[in-house]
Amino acid sequence: MGGDKAPAVVVDGAVQALAAAPGKLAVILVGAEDVLRRELDRYDLADLNLHVVNAPEVIGMDEAPAVAVKTKRQSSIHIGLGAHKEGRADAFVSAGNTGAVMAASLFILGRLPGVLRPTVPGFFPTTESFTVVLDVGANVDSKPEHLVQFAQMGKIYVEKVLHRENPAVALLNIGEEPGKGNEAVKMAYEILQQMPGLRFVGNIEGRDVMNHAADVIVCDGFTGNIMLKFGESVVAVLPKLLGAEMQAQRLGREDVETIQRVLAGVVRRFNYEEFGGSPLLGVDGNVLIAHGSSSARAIEQAILRAAEVVEQGVTASIADSFGA
Amino acid sequence: MGGDKAPAVVVDGAVQALAAAPGKLAVILVGAEDVLRRELDRYDLADLNLHVVNAPEVIGMDEAPAVAVKTKRQSSIHIGLGAHKEGRADAFVSAGNTGAVMAASLFILGRLPGVLRPTVPGFFPTTESFTVVLDVGANVDSKPEHLVQFAQMGKIYVEKVLHRENPAVALLNIGEEPGKGNEAVKMAYEILQQMPGLRFVGNIEGRDVMNHAADVIVCDGFTGNIMLKFGESVVAVLPKLLGAEMQAQRLGREDVETIQRVLAGVVRRFNYEEFGGSPLLGVDGNVLIAHGSSSARAIEQAILRAAEVVEQGVTASIADSFGA
Repeated sequence: MGGDKAPAVVVDGAVQALAAAPGKLAVILVGAEDVLRRELDRYDLADLNLHVVNAPEVIGMDEAPAVAVKTKRQSSIHIGLGAHKEGRADAFVSAGNTGAVMAASLFILGRLPGVLRPTVPGFFPTTESFTVVLDVGANVDSKPEHLVQFAQMGKIYVEKVLHRENPAVALLNIGEEPGKGNEAVKMAYEILQQMPGLRFVGNIEGRDVMNHAADVIVCDGFTGNIMLKFGESVVAVLPKLLGAEMQAQRLGREDVETIQRVLAGVVRRFNYEEFGGSPLLGVDGNVLIAHGSSSARAIEQAILRAAEVVEQGVTASIADSFGA
Repeated sequence: MGGDKAPAVVVDGAVQALAAAPGKLAVILVGAEDVLRRELDRYDLADLNLHVVNAPEVIGMDEAPAVAVKTKRQSSIHIGLGAHKEGRADAFVSAGNTGAVMAASLFILGRLPGVLRPTVPGFFPTTESFTVVLDVGANVDSKPEHLVQFAQMGKIYVEKVLHRENPAVALLNIGEEPGKGNEAVKMAYEILQQMPGLRFVGNIEGRDVMNHAADVIVCDGFTGNIMLKFGESVVAVLPKLLGAEMQAQRLGREDVETIQRVLAGVVRRFNYEEFGGSPLLGVDGNVLIAHGSSSARAIEQAILRAAEVVEQGVTASIADSFGA
């Protein structure tokens, strides 16, 4: 029931994911059963490993997470996470209220032993491919030890799911020299520099993110969230600015179409749909958070990414790393 | 002597500024006199109100500000700021080591009474025009009362120099609702909301910056600096990404040229050169900090902007506002 275009695109995305990985997946749709059944009328379900679990309540996108999580125990978020907790599902995917998913995950699944704060990474396109920035919104006022754990969890995710060996880990800062930045970042630098098994490449600046200065970029969730949303808006504004400029230069229809085709190719690189949702790392379970404005394609990718997180044992690796 | 291309472009920019405002300006070039004289050989100085003051030392772009400011008393930064302090110049402009300019300004000019921390605003292009974000690098670990002062100084600058009446002031945050964000931002919100004479429009998110959600956007210098440099890099990377896409789509030469012409028009909006440098607000004087990679055009604009800061009495307005 989560996301701006639910439940239609969520149902479509689930069906697409099953088609993309035939025989490998089962999907349980959690939500208002009558509504979901109506959406499913569009499909021939005979060959699809698709199930429906009824959840009569819905937590709205704008509801205060703390209140909603306490009061709406029959929401799709509660019932879905409950099914995961009880082992009836291997992972939980939601495009719903991010704060509510995080709060309910903490409440129902709990943190892994040793993890101070679970974290949500964001994906940024780079000139090479893309880089992982964490945290992007779950945590504000991060202490040095939180930043260090973000680095460790980010490294495990990049190794396991993105298959990059020994990824470069950097600290996002306002200058490259050691000793730069705020108090939390200065202390995190000292700890990261001495951490065995972590390829820490030091401080990087905002301008280095898109040049792929590192595979894992660590920052407080306040800065990460603002940078992520600012970046999304630059990409959203770009077609408008190009359009205004094309008009000012009085371009013909053919030229406009050519430019739009090239721009579409560039914008595709920035497309959150292809990143398949962000894992909530550090909870005792496998939770994928999809963008609130997810399309069917984005939901499909998030489900497939969730399956990969399960297959690659990301959560067990984090547990091993922090429990040791 | 400051900036990556000094002193040639600084001399060129000074000459251009004098040509742009004939009879209204005098420019004093401060630096190694022999070097400056050689650069000036390129010009006919008879009609130019241009002067040279010798400063034998140079603070390098990568020198540690605290040390350099203490030891190099004969640097162009010291001697230029000294001339301003003594009233022989109405403003000081530098494209040099930003940290050193700020440290020396505090040391030589001092803070205005009541100002807790001077601030440097950054300029962000928007769909409408541009918006002013402060702080973008002078301050980390800002307390709520610092953020509130950034709002007050930003409002004065926008009113006086950008001639926007009663500008909208917003707090950069990870959500729009009151109560969102880190501790400093939450407390700043409470104070700003009750401040008379300030049109506070509440919290805005990273995605709202380019949509011109406010004329003045307040944040800690850590987040502001990272967002500014990240934004610059997106614009720098864009031609590369478009170039790669044009190659992938095998576009002909004419199409490539058309696209490059349109792109140039868009990139111009993001061009720091046109913003004319950032004022250091809150010190007892008029200091303009130009980009380290300033072109002659950027230096010209910074000098003209400095003249405007003087003419509009920005520093006196801040002094009035905080001294009251």
